[in-house]
Amino acid sequence: MSKHTSFLRFLVLSSVLLSSVSYGSAGITSSFVRSEWPSIDIPLDNEVFAIPKGYNAPEQVHITQGDYDGKAVIISWVTPKESGPNKLQYGTSEKQYNFSAEGTTTNYTFYNYKSGYIHHCLVDGLEIGTGDSAREFWFQTPPKIDPDASYTFGIIGDMGQTYNSLSTLEHYMQSGGQTLLFVGDLSYADRYENNDVGIRWDSWGRFIERSAAYQPWIWTVGNHEIEYMPKMGEVRPFRNYLTRYVTPFAASKSTSPLWYSIRRASAHIIVLSSYSPFVTYTLQWRWLKEELTKVDREKTPWLIVLMHSPLYNSNVKHFMEGESMRAAFESWFVQYKVDLIFAGHVHAYERSYRFSNIHYNVSSGDRYPIFDKSAPVYITVGDGGNQEGLAVSFRDPQPDYAAFREASYGHSTLELKNRTHALYHWNRNDDGKKVPTDSVVFLNQYWASNLQRRRKLKKTNRRIATYL
Amino acid sequence: MSKHTSFLRFLVLSSVLLSSVSYGSAGITSSFVRSEWPSIDIPLDNEVFAIPKGYNAPEQVHITQGDYDGKAVIISWVTPKESGPNKLQYGTSEKQYNFSAEGTTTNYTFYNYKSGYIHHCLVDGLEIGTGDSAREFWFQTPPKIDPDASYTFGIIGDMGQTYNSLSTLEHYMQSGGQTLLFVGDLSYADRYENNDVGIRWDSWGRFIERSAAYQPWIWTVGNHEIEYMPKMGEVRPFRNYLTRYVTPFAASKSTSPLWYSIRRASAHIIVLSSYSPFVTYTLQWRWLKEELTKVDREKTPWLIVLMHSPLYNSNVKHFMEGESMRAAFESWFVQYKVDLIFAGHVHAYERSYRFSNIHYNVSSGDRYPIFDKSAPVYITVGDGGNQEGLAVSFRDPQPDYAAFREASYGHSTLELKNRTHALYHWNRNDDGKKVPTDSVVFLNQYWASNLQRRRKLKKTNRRIATYL
Repeated sequence: MSKHTSFLRFLVLSSVLLSSVSYGSAGITSSFVRSEWPSIDIPLDNEVFAIPKGYNAPEQVHITQGDYDGKAVIISWVTPKESGPNKLQYGTSEKQYNFSAEGTTTNYTFYNYKSGYIHHCLVDGLEIGTGDSAREFWFQTPPKIDPDASYTFGIIGDMGQTYNSLSTLEHYMQSGGQTLLFVGDLSYADRYENNDVGIRWDSWGRFIERSAAYQPWIWTVGNHEIEYMPKMGEVRPFRNYLTRYVTPFAASKSTSPLWYSIRRASAHIIVLSSYSPFVTYTLQWRWLKEELTKVDREKTPWLIVLMHSPLYNSNVKHFMEGESMRAAFESWFVQYKVDLIFAGHVHAYERSYRFSNIHYNVSSGDRYPIFDKSAPVYITVGDGGNQEGLAVSFRDPQPDYAAFREASYGHSTLELKNRTHALYHWNRNDDGKKVPTDSVVFLNQYWASNLQRRRKLKKTNRRIATYL
Repeated sequence: MSKHTSFLRFLVLSSVLLSSVSYGSAGITSSFVRSEWPSIDIPLDNEVFAIPKGYNAPEQVHITQGDYDGKAVIISWVTPKESGPNKLQYGTSEKQYNFSAEGTTTNYTFYNYKSGYIHHCLVDGLEIGTGDSAREFWFQTPPKIDPDASYTFGIIGDMGQTYNSLSTLEHYMQSGGQTLLFVGDLSYADRYENNDVGIRWDSWGRFIERSAAYQPWIWTVGNHEIEYMPKMGEVRPFRNYLTRYVTPFAASKSTSPLWYSIRRASAHIIVLSSYSPFVTYTLQWRWLKEELTKVDREKTPWLIVLMHSPLYNSNVKHFMEGESMRAAFESWFVQYKVDLIFAGHVHAYERSYRFSNIHYNVSSGDRYPIFDKSAPVYITVGDGGNQEGLAVSFRDPQPDYAAFREASYGHSTLELKNRTHALYHWNRNDDGKKVPTDSVVFLNQYWASNLQRRRKLKKTNRRIATYL
């Protein structure tokens, strides 16, 4: 079963403007009492980590976007015993794999753990493997870049590999998400020691394959990827992560795989690294400054930013840890009217109103963040289900910027309907069931205000406005 | 002339506590109108950049501390034509060079520029070179780590190689400084293109040799060291800097030459990198957290921090650019009662009162930085004289935290007298003359408050306090 179809485009231009993120309504702290699955990692012999059958069978298959505009994918897999043919066969209809592509192979040691052979291959269609242990996967190409392309993204953070993680992943797979935006902290392998670190990176790779082999996961780096482990002689940051999860950073003229951007359907997605240099003059700062000027809202109306450490968070855990990056980048996010900023890190769910703190300064100005219609909505989804458990204490009183917060596991979905409207849900893991809980219609920060401006103009000056 | 003497220790325990940095007096913006030397780089054929005579003669000699406690130095030099004997002869009296040491040699290209052979050699005494082109230098070893060791540090930032830079350097050499704390932005070679970048790193090396070969310069990295120059194919940050100026980072268990600490005489000096990762979980953050616990104020009473981008600055230029690092580290600096924080970056002079902003948060708390007797004094000396000129506009009104500010070129000196007192001057370059302008007596943040506590205790409970 291999499909390579162009996705249908739905041009749903709604004629009604729904007001959704209006400030003034009191923020909500959900009183939901979750019944939690055990917050322990699933044992390695559980079937979710099963090693596929066959000698040297490819495993840990995952794909990510391979270029700026979604016309390519990077397909990654691991062969455990030997490098084998570093070759990928692919085609556009079942059993007709007329094309092939060659990738790169690498392996590495981490402490005494020896990884399998890690393959990364850039292609635009796929079937993986040859011979007896061939395994077949399929994926759908995204619609062409188009301002009204309808597309559904999922968002997961801080996942790990517990029973809660499994629940989140299964719910996401029922959500209809076509591409996953992963906001950092992948395997939590750094909670282990010595060779178990590498082993738990492998098990996580097999764990997510059920989704990540069939649709792109867009990667953001988190603090659990740093893995500075001097006792084991491992001091180079991000080693396991960088070797296993690659990103198309060069396509967006980035100099590091840790920050980059992609365009997909009607979205321009910017991925930032909380744990790399980002202040004025640094390479990430220079790159972001340049990249924001390249965003074309006429082509990609939805401007979305991903990072691990949230800039706004009212949980007791990690409160104001994102201040350094907020000080560096918030004014740009307001200036460029970013629609949504997704982060993880805090093991709970939180959504903000449109607030900014860009008028604060150390000698005069506003005291606190204030309502700002040009500001992004900040959403924290660090509730993927890892073994560290939930961050259950929210700050009291609830700050004005905090619209909705709840300490449960779950994931989010963002359905871009057209250039003006998007339907958003946070989906709670409720006793193993997926329950859409925080549902919001977002108006596009560029087009919705344009529409409003046009209408106002029409009303007040109908004759002049006829050409609009 | 080679000396290797142990420095005399002056045990000057003052019996009078001078109150110096009291908040409440109105801050000063000096009305001094400087007459400025031309802010252009000195031409390469000027004698200050003269290439020493003799075939392959060692040039660009500079030394820095080579270990944690000042018992070693790293001696660096360049041989322009060939690597030559990578050997250093040294001794403790003139013409008796009984010892020798071997170093490392490296060279590199930057665009098409080819560097000379750069030698770094770790020793505890010195004379450089052999054969016809041998050149002799000398330096004094610092006093042993001692809480009452008297020692004078100079502080220079943003130096460059203009006529103003030369004036600053000459004045510093008259100041009696024994070790220079350099707070970043060295050569300003990045204002040049192509091969002139490397050439201006070389000329700067010859320029500072008059001081840096005879006493340690302690290095801090600045934004002009980043040198991201994609048009020339040079994209690896800090390349010229890291190759030429080494630091004893491993001695303080740092993993990067860009952040480290040394102890010298009665001071514990922590060097930070404004342009490396520093938020929670990053390697610099972990290192600083650990290093601060190692500071022993009983042995090294004076806790001094160096960085390039200031945390407090009331100049229009670069205002609040240091907010990201302030958000990350300020609470530690207050908790550990850091005495002084020196920075550069802003091309003017500024000294703060003891202020902190650690009670600010985005949902409640104090609005502005407030007087805090546990806070460091922040001093900006980005006025070394580089070709970019002065930052002449200060914010108006003058913020409460700003004690003294003036847009002139100059350098600072800090004379540690004993465990409780230090005499500090900022020395303005005034029509080519050195003029001590902002003179302050600093009380040690650890010992002075201890003394005050003891006195108070004595007064209120004389009987109990007799054992103190």
